[in-house]
Amino acid sequence: MSFPGSNARALGLVVSALFVLSCASSQTPGAEEPKAGAEAEAFVDPLPSWNDTATKAQILDFVRGVSDPDDPAFVEPEARVATFDNDGTLWVEQPVYAEMAFALHRVRDLAQVHPEWKTQEPFKAVIEDDKEALIAAGSHGLVEIVVASHTGMSTTLFENIASEWVRDARHPKFERPYTELAYQPQLELLRHLEANGFKTFIVSGGSVEFMRTYTEVVYGIPPERVVGSSIETRYEVQGGKPSLLRLPEVAFVNDKSGKPVAIYRRIGRNPILAFGNSDGDLEMLQWTTLGSGGARLGLLLHHDDAQREYAYDRESKVGKLDKALDAAGQSGWVIVSMKNDWKTVFDED
Amino acid sequence: MSFPGSNARALGLVVSALFVLSCASSQTPGAEEPKAGAEAEAFVDPLPSWNDTATKAQILDFVRGVSDPDDPAFVEPEARVATFDNDGTLWVEQPVYAEMAFALHRVRDLAQVHPEWKTQEPFKAVIEDDKEALIAAGSHGLVEIVVASHTGMSTTLFENIASEWVRDARHPKFERPYTELAYQPQLELLRHLEANGFKTFIVSGGSVEFMRTYTEVVYGIPPERVVGSSIETRYEVQGGKPSLLRLPEVAFVNDKSGKPVAIYRRIGRNPILAFGNSDGDLEMLQWTTLGSGGARLGLLLHHDDAQREYAYDRESKVGKLDKALDAAGQSGWVIVSMKNDWKTVFDED
Repeated sequence: MSFPGSNARALGLVVSALFVLSCASSQTPGAEEPKAGAEAEAFVDPLPSWNDTATKAQILDFVRGVSDPDDPAFVEPEARVATFDNDGTLWVEQPVYAEMAFALHRVRDLAQVHPEWKTQEPFKAVIEDDKEALIAAGSHGLVEIVVASHTGMSTTLFENIASEWVRDARHPKFERPYTELAYQPQLELLRHLEANGFKTFIVSGGSVEFMRTYTEVVYGIPPERVVGSSIETRYEVQGGKPSLLRLPEVAFVNDKSGKPVAIYRRIGRNPILAFGNSDGDLEMLQWTTLGSGGARLGLLLHHDDAQREYAYDRESKVGKLDKALDAAGQSGWVIVSMKNDWKTVFDED
Repeated sequence: MSFPGSNARALGLVVSALFVLSCASSQTPGAEEPKAGAEAEAFVDPLPSWNDTATKAQILDFVRGVSDPDDPAFVEPEARVATFDNDGTLWVEQPVYAEMAFALHRVRDLAQVHPEWKTQEPFKAVIEDDKEALIAAGSHGLVEIVVASHTGMSTTLFENIASEWVRDARHPKFERPYTELAYQPQLELLRHLEANGFKTFIVSGGSVEFMRTYTEVVYGIPPERVVGSSIETRYEVQGGKPSLLRLPEVAFVNDKSGKPVAIYRRIGRNPILAFGNSDGDLEMLQWTTLGSGGARLGLLLHHDDAQREYAYDRESKVGKLDKALDAAGQSGWVIVSMKNDWKTVFDED
């Protein structure tokens, strides 16, 4: 396979954004139990999977304020836009992003029709599950994995392949489908926002076509409200049938400063609430909270719960939370502690 | 101003798509009066500005069928996606696209701080309203006009400038604000579709940032459901304030085969109804009606009404309708005659 220089570089970029191979565990042990809420609440709790902490009160207050015409924080319904990162914010991103697990699986599948891969890196490393060799293959190797797994087919075929994987795959730690590893507290928050006139959007570094195979069913968010990275496609008509062919060229990298760019281009309005969990969300939170006046809420999920999920932040290769954690204080962003603020993590049914 | 070669070419492309300078009128005289509907209808007519023709019946039948769970044509509400071209489909596009009129106006405004433009093409031609010289400046000249009028400023400033023009400008023939030149029959159709569970989208070659200054107020379509061409923007933080700077580089050309690409990437579902009026909509109608099974409706507005609006098709430089007109027959697309199918064109209040 050959790449024009600039495409290879761009693809390398999106690969870096999407797929970080993590071998070293950076989990820290969780010791304390979640703190129980101080008082029982008299109203029907829209966020029962959240503990009754100051964090929860702040979220509920914000939503109440912007929805109340008599409150100085009131925001017209059409401007109530909320954006959520996906991996690590709405569902589990450790030990590797689901999309990376899919890409590796797909390469192993394709190896049956590519006998030459048995001796050819990075495919050899994928087939043999040789993490050292995979890391040694570097970003160029990852580009080849993404190209092999994500491109050179119609959009319809890709959707079928990705949907099948999402249905059948199991998370290595939880041994459940990834789709059951959406965070229950976040599903409640999405519904609470929508019940109060918000339009909710996913704004993620993941590829939009992969995400859409599950986002509507899992999060109740329709495809037009899912914003992601994307590759180029080419429109073709063959035998009277139109199709879109997936090309090995990046169209857009929806990470870091790409997030405000995409929010502006795709949503066309500044969010008043943004929820992320990593440095990839820093600019989205800046754009949301510092871009214009009025009530704004920036939230960062801190994975500090090795017992129930994972604990990682500044040193993690997946979902690194370092600069955004530093910026949170002066920007007034709320750090949501998985350990302390969430009563349950997953739907246990 | 200098352009990297590929950007200049890409910008030339979007300019060609967006802004065709038309001097020669290709209007043909309209002679007949609109035919009156044959019978009064017993139900409350959702499309009172449409004559009671076979076209109207076909549209109403389609909407009724896909919305009726007992009809074989039934489509689940979430899949009821309708896409509309903008210029020439939802509002007037002659004698030049509104966005082109805006660009020319903006250049004349900026000439006050660019005295050198008095002797420098293409600006000289714009300032002197010299159509011959403008055409002679070719696509490179148009690129310079678009760059001067559309880029090198923050998104916020651009929105303000564009909104002001949209508010103050008057159409040369109708002497009314462009925003009053939305087609009344189409506004009724948008509302009728939405009342039947459709999600309506604008999918236009115009730039998304320009369109959004009026699309919500004029068409009732929120910004996240407006898909257009776009330029690159760069995220910047200065003095703690984030902004997006508009760059002289094209991000996406949403015309012809770009429309299916954008529909897939942005909407994430195939439309079941698409409405266009020019060859720029050919691929969108193919993608909608030939892409997959089930009830589908492709519509083309034919501007054959010189008396009330304009009459143009195969020879027009703005909104050329030639290949799509040829394709309509074999593809089963419905040709909507402005003259015969529309009782009124504009809201006369």
